[in-house]
Amino acid sequence: MKNRIVVIGANAAGAKAAAKARRTDPRAEIVVLDRGNFISYGACGIPYYLSDTVKELKELMSTPVGVVRDSNFFSKVKGVSVRTNTEVTAIDRARKVVRLREGGAGESELCYHKLVLATGSSPVVPPIDNVALDNVFTVKSIEDAELLKERAVPGAAACIIGAGLIGLETAEALQDKGMRVTLVEMRDQLLPGVLDSEVATLVEKQVKLQGVTVLSGCAVTGFAGEGRVQQVIAGGRQIAADLVVLAPGVRPNVALAREAGLAIGVTGAIAVNERQATSDPDIFACGDCCETTHLVTGKKVFVPLGSTANKQGRVAGINAAGGSATFAGVIGTSILKVFNVNAGKTGLTESEARKQGFDVETVLSPAPDRAHFYPGAKPILLKLVAERGTGRILGLQAAGEGAVDKRLDAAAAAITFRANADQLSQLDLAYAPPYSAAMDNLIVAADIMKNKLAGHARGISAREVKRKLEEGDDFILLDVRSPAEHGEIGIAGAKLIPLGTLRERMEELPKEKEIITFCKVSLRGYEAQKILDAAGFADVKFMDGGIMAWPYRFRDQ
Amino acid sequence: MKNRIVVIGANAAGAKAAAKARRTDPRAEIVVLDRGNFISYGACGIPYYLSDTVKELKELMSTPVGVVRDSNFFSKVKGVSVRTNTEVTAIDRARKVVRLREGGAGESELCYHKLVLATGSSPVVPPIDNVALDNVFTVKSIEDAELLKERAVPGAAACIIGAGLIGLETAEALQDKGMRVTLVEMRDQLLPGVLDSEVATLVEKQVKLQGVTVLSGCAVTGFAGEGRVQQVIAGGRQIAADLVVLAPGVRPNVALAREAGLAIGVTGAIAVNERQATSDPDIFACGDCCETTHLVTGKKVFVPLGSTANKQGRVAGINAAGGSATFAGVIGTSILKVFNVNAGKTGLTESEARKQGFDVETVLSPAPDRAHFYPGAKPILLKLVAERGTGRILGLQAAGEGAVDKRLDAAAAAITFRANADQLSQLDLAYAPPYSAAMDNLIVAADIMKNKLAGHARGISAREVKRKLEEGDDFILLDVRSPAEHGEIGIAGAKLIPLGTLRERMEELPKEKEIITFCKVSLRGYEAQKILDAAGFADVKFMDGGIMAWPYRFRDQ
Repeated sequence: MKNRIVVIGANAAGAKAAAKARRTDPRAEIVVLDRGNFISYGACGIPYYLSDTVKELKELMSTPVGVVRDSNFFSKVKGVSVRTNTEVTAIDRARKVVRLREGGAGESELCYHKLVLATGSSPVVPPIDNVALDNVFTVKSIEDAELLKERAVPGAAACIIGAGLIGLETAEALQDKGMRVTLVEMRDQLLPGVLDSEVATLVEKQVKLQGVTVLSGCAVTGFAGEGRVQQVIAGGRQIAADLVVLAPGVRPNVALAREAGLAIGVTGAIAVNERQATSDPDIFACGDCCETTHLVTGKKVFVPLGSTANKQGRVAGINAAGGSATFAGVIGTSILKVFNVNAGKTGLTESEARKQGFDVETVLSPAPDRAHFYPGAKPILLKLVAERGTGRILGLQAAGEGAVDKRLDAAAAAITFRANADQLSQLDLAYAPPYSAAMDNLIVAADIMKNKLAGHARGISAREVKRKLEEGDDFILLDVRSPAEHGEIGIAGAKLIPLGTLRERMEELPKEKEIITFCKVSLRGYEAQKILDAAGFADVKFMDGGIMAWPYRFRDQ
Repeated sequence: MKNRIVVIGANAAGAKAAAKARRTDPRAEIVVLDRGNFISYGACGIPYYLSDTVKELKELMSTPVGVVRDSNFFSKVKGVSVRTNTEVTAIDRARKVVRLREGGAGESELCYHKLVLATGSSPVVPPIDNVALDNVFTVKSIEDAELLKERAVPGAAACIIGAGLIGLETAEALQDKGMRVTLVEMRDQLLPGVLDSEVATLVEKQVKLQGVTVLSGCAVTGFAGEGRVQQVIAGGRQIAADLVVLAPGVRPNVALAREAGLAIGVTGAIAVNERQATSDPDIFACGDCCETTHLVTGKKVFVPLGSTANKQGRVAGINAAGGSATFAGVIGTSILKVFNVNAGKTGLTESEARKQGFDVETVLSPAPDRAHFYPGAKPILLKLVAERGTGRILGLQAAGEGAVDKRLDAAAAAITFRANADQLSQLDLAYAPPYSAAMDNLIVAADIMKNKLAGHARGISAREVKRKLEEGDDFILLDVRSPAEHGEIGIAGAKLIPLGTLRERMEELPKEKEIITFCKVSLRGYEAQKILDAAGFADVKFMDGGIMAWPYRFRDQ
């Protein structure tokens, strides 16, 4: 009998594994089993289908040249047999057989030489009251999307539970369709786990500007309604809702693997090694069902993503077919577009880094995304996180209307190779005015990081300054912007000495008192700190990120 | 006497060096001398000022918050004294003195403890006939730009000599102003030294589509005209021109350094070490006047760029002020926008790599710049160059209407850290449909490179296929696209067997003959090669980059 490779799951990872197995071993028999109707679709595209940004379902299932990747395509082009509506109910590892139920038919068995698990993930459905009411949705499958699209009536109220990537993308999609959208998040910020709070604040501001109601720090306890959902119960509050989308996250589909006795990792996903092999050397796993290694911390993580699924599928497919390939891991890069904001991260956030025990230094650097004089330049905020002592870059977050993706990608490459701040600051990035300033935002952030790590620049967070103001600490808050900027938006209690006059007017300031300088972004604030340092002032810092980082909700005007 | 640091040149590198020296040594006296009137302007912005994309000159000389960086700004904010209209005529290293001529005044002397040379570069003016005629311009200074702008009359004929970055940017600027533009390039392609010819072809196509006349392989021998230029003489040809822009490149301004006996490098620019120190430890150099190290080849190069100037200025300033910093070098990254095309490179091109003696493998990979189903996706072409044996990535070129800059930046970081193809293919780049396909263009290119390096994928260049067709070689050119695609644009003599029918129809093909497959981009072409390989065909290759890489000038329709 020919070598038979059986793949369970025909989406990103499974489809990739099957195709790659075929190329690796042209003689193997390759069978892909999927319990669903739709295969090889771009699940990440579902929010865009929902909003009609993508008009036709088949666009999500096509190759870039427009060929639909259905069973016929896999058979004709890939030489791979795909059986849809076929659920695998058990794996018998001793006999190397999977038990399956195909369509309406009864159970049957299929033996394998190598097995690839690409069983994916499922939305978490929290165990709360009346979660089974009609019009309570999750957004993962095409079927979900079709039904949700039908029910998303303009003017009706939608409530989205969970302000992660999918929650925010869905919020935009439903708002675009004319619904009144409320976003409910248990934690006290949007995108928890993706962004630190001051960066998330920037996203929240834009989401609210678009008319979405945001309720953070708000735990949903259940739903109420007659047959279909009518209210979301969150704390004591009742939120009217004609439909609800549950988006609190996904969990890996590991039931088959667990029942077959395969090792499940600390993250709850299937444990695999660098070859994507499970604890059974004849069984591989790839995509959302398995865990991977975080290359910054060295620890196992569960970070389901279409990009990673493809990479792992390739490796699993090669190895299942007798070849040799490895997948090292991820660094937790993620990104989303929500309304006109782009936001994402790579590596560790500050809070993740602190949890991992790193001694961290951070830089907040807002600036235009290209030469400030070039038309269309848009602001972006970078937050760079590095390890004190070594200067190693641990992570970057980026958010704003401008090009954040390329700063994340360049940083992702640098972090993968364990760059330190000095190395990051010297990267030969592509420069011309339509693409960046002569000093790219990433280079500027790295330079500030070097200044901070060397002790030349002393920053203090806007949050900390806010706290000090509220607690009535005795310090001078020094605005070094122009009088015009000061008049436009300020912080109550700040003293104005424009940077250009500081050298002449510094005798107005007491030498021994704590002084915190700030400007729009923090470059002039830092310059002011250096001027005052040089004049013998004892305790001068600048506010990180300037007034751009002053959370809008703190603003006095 | 206080430590005095004298900086010659007040543009990007000089201004940065002075500012950084001030922060490093708050007590030093810092004097910047510049022979011009305008200081700290973005020379890279001049083409955009020319086209009125940037309306006001002062925008080029402002900080991102709109403060003009003039002598007053440097004095008040930076604590740096800038003297404009001040030409340094000699450096007396023995006495540590510069001789200078200030404005209308006579000569005087200024002593220094440390000297920073930031004398920049000047446009090369080729020694050809009548080059001094009126209306023959270079584009480097603000004064040039002002005069050229005045003379750029709609409907008049402009001739640009040199199709490098500045030449192309200027071509667009003058075309935008309604001039009839002819671009003359001595070499047989646009952007020689930046792009390999097949990538440059893509740029040339777009430039021609915009109405620019392109004459490549055309050496200008002189100009003709009465007082002002009227004709460009190129070979036997006479090209009518109301104005001419010379853009054959720039050369470093090294006269002062050479006369002072400082070492000049093999590139003709001032030799410096990692600390930006010249052969005199009290004299530093930075920016366009000095050479640097190419981090891929380890060799000295002259690559003047605003981004590099800033980095070097920072290092020179710190070291001149008694601090310690180093600049490792560059990898030759450059980019330009010309009309609706973005094009650039990082690392080595194929031709550069071959000249350096590398055994190279290349990949051409055209694809949409984001998820193909996401609105606004635009095609880009990547060309990846790697070293055979090690798999080390040597360079990337990218061109097209879509986002090429971020692929260049990510590759620049990877190349700096000496990534191989496998490492590049595993980068955790930021993925969501608005930003990339699940497998980013860079990942796809790296995967193809791995397949090629391992001998699984065998490519042949479109140029080579063209040659084989012309010479009547006995081989089968196999189009594996759909009949619709085949009908739309094809290559004469190709046999059509759509990929989906290849497994059934392969008996139509002879097993021993050379077969070259192709599709639109090359993924199906590769798939076809694998299918035929597996069936025992002896000599199958695919055409790199598919029909997208088939130079338009070769097209049969």
